[in-house]
Amino acid sequence: MKIQGKHYQTIWLKENNPEIIQVIDQRKLPFQFEIFDIITVEDTFFAIKEMVVRGAPLIGVTAAYGMYLALLEFKNGDLRNFVIDKANYLKLSRPTAINLSFVVDEMVAFILNEKDNSDLIEAVLKKANQLKEKEIHFSEKIGDFGFEIIEEIYKRKGETVNILTHCNAGWLACIDWGTATAPIYKAHQKGIPVHVWVDETRPRNQGARLTAFELGEENISHTVIPDNSGGHLMQHGMVDLVIVGSDRTTSSGDVANKIGTYLKALAAKDNNIPFYAALPSSTFDWVTEDGVKEIPIEQRDPKEVSEIEGWTESGIQIVRLIPEKSNVANFGFDVTPARLVTGLITERGVCEANKESILRLFPEKKNHN
Amino acid sequence: MKIQGKHYQTIWLKENNPEIIQVIDQRKLPFQFEIFDIITVEDTFFAIKEMVVRGAPLIGVTAAYGMYLALLEFKNGDLRNFVIDKANYLKLSRPTAINLSFVVDEMVAFILNEKDNSDLIEAVLKKANQLKEKEIHFSEKIGDFGFEIIEEIYKRKGETVNILTHCNAGWLACIDWGTATAPIYKAHQKGIPVHVWVDETRPRNQGARLTAFELGEENISHTVIPDNSGGHLMQHGMVDLVIVGSDRTTSSGDVANKIGTYLKALAAKDNNIPFYAALPSSTFDWVTEDGVKEIPIEQRDPKEVSEIEGWTESGIQIVRLIPEKSNVANFGFDVTPARLVTGLITERGVCEANKESILRLFPEKKNHN
Repeated sequence: MKIQGKHYQTIWLKENNPEIIQVIDQRKLPFQFEIFDIITVEDTFFAIKEMVVRGAPLIGVTAAYGMYLALLEFKNGDLRNFVIDKANYLKLSRPTAINLSFVVDEMVAFILNEKDNSDLIEAVLKKANQLKEKEIHFSEKIGDFGFEIIEEIYKRKGETVNILTHCNAGWLACIDWGTATAPIYKAHQKGIPVHVWVDETRPRNQGARLTAFELGEENISHTVIPDNSGGHLMQHGMVDLVIVGSDRTTSSGDVANKIGTYLKALAAKDNNIPFYAALPSSTFDWVTEDGVKEIPIEQRDPKEVSEIEGWTESGIQIVRLIPEKSNVANFGFDVTPARLVTGLITERGVCEANKESILRLFPEKKNHN
Repeated sequence: MKIQGKHYQTIWLKENNPEIIQVIDQRKLPFQFEIFDIITVEDTFFAIKEMVVRGAPLIGVTAAYGMYLALLEFKNGDLRNFVIDKANYLKLSRPTAINLSFVVDEMVAFILNEKDNSDLIEAVLKKANQLKEKEIHFSEKIGDFGFEIIEEIYKRKGETVNILTHCNAGWLACIDWGTATAPIYKAHQKGIPVHVWVDETRPRNQGARLTAFELGEENISHTVIPDNSGGHLMQHGMVDLVIVGSDRTTSSGDVANKIGTYLKALAAKDNNIPFYAALPSSTFDWVTEDGVKEIPIEQRDPKEVSEIEGWTESGIQIVRLIPEKSNVANFGFDVTPARLVTGLITERGVCEANKESILRLFPEKKNHN
């Protein structure tokens, strides 16, 4: 998608130097736009750990390129030990990101399988590129399927479709298009007038910082709102559709997503507004049935709540928001029960949030248990 | 209630100088505790307009003392014109605060009725003192009635009662005790272990700044949470009771309160958690029946969302949170339909949120229409 009118993806090979990976430094968005060079495995570790890059799809692809950079550093000795060492190191950069582990293991298996290939480095780079292209393809398919939902509302309503989203399930979390935002970009490109209500998404404000930035750079009409506002907007007919992302989706259609998603789903239900989660099928957790009971919810650093980062004329500044005596709790996610979810938008199509409908799209998972 | 171990109310006559009114300067709480002197009507106007004082009960009482200060300035001429002029001026300090208008009119009527009294100034000061005492009395009665709800939960549960509240319906918005917080203070004083989940309450963060400060100074166990968190806590049995305030309550029991209240009421309903609004009967709007349709919701300055004030080592600082290109919406309140409200805690007792039950407590309003 575009930044300052120029097309970007979140990660790419440096022009004229395919031994350097470049990413958008997301730590300073929307206040500063900077490119970050990843040259070594240590840089890759740093970029993931310090959230230069974030979002499961982007973390995975960054780690894949990290394994390619590792291979560039290999001089001689035991390739197997070297690769496994680097893989274990990279996995520690965000230990809770299951996706990261998965991609790194896939790269290790690929390297060890190809190790007698004289063009090993080229083959591994090609593999990383393929993983990147697959993520883009999945996002775009989600966009196409979600577009049909927006189009149908537009045909019925005949005027601007108002979509509410929470957090950043945008292209900055992916490589391009995003998940929850992909249908919005598709609708905008096809001339359907859309307006997006962007939950600021406390405590880390990914909505106010990243989603608002993304939409602004694509010239999509949008309004940032406090997380408290969505219910009021829905009561007054100002929201036609809710689309959120998913960090983990149970086989029964429960959706674990950024904290606060559940509250918006309740309000959507109370006001008969369709509520969709857009997700690549890699977020399905096929063995979990009851999301509220079974999915562990991580508690994050209280400083994310008690302090906030913003922009002043003298640069980025952190200010404290809460009395020093006060305790703070910072739960990262909540679970929206399937009964509140109108449907799931996946790379294979849209299904209802129940086991039967999900398995109709993913029949190969039928005998998973 | 207490600040730094010393008992305070939010407004008082200066010791040894009853021609100066003193208030706690709420603009800098919790980061700085300062007393603000109100000496003239202009000071009164400033204190209300600039939110040195805030909260309907406190605004009303401040304005009542403002009329007393006005009278101190009266030299000669037409008292009636003078008083009405000052009253109209004061009413403009927060034009949407119905309560302010009401109290100022009450003071005008009192002054003009007493104008031949040789001790007019003393009588007017006494009247302002009485209005203050009435607010304290009402808060304390709300505390007593609400206490019974907490006590009943404690008797059943046998351990710490977890109460969630939104915004600041605390003693800082009143004179003492508060409305939503009054039952909590009563319970704490009577030895019932309570813990309060404090919604930070974006955009103005009255929860994080004021409620957290109040509770901390009273040594009441509390945890500040992002507004997004309440649903998750309720799903997991971590909330026993929700108590909020009310800015306006319809005759049918709908509650207009700080934006985001409705979302918490939905979550409470979905998890079978009692949801109460605590309010002095002056917040009843006896002519409105359908709160969602009829109550106008004010839109406030977008800067309250796009910027935030916090504390740094070099003092209070404002930082920007949102890209400059992005629009912002800032709705001040939302309406929680009566069907989501377990009960209303008033100075006359607790009733259900429906016309019949409300009128049983306030029978004199039966023929209001």
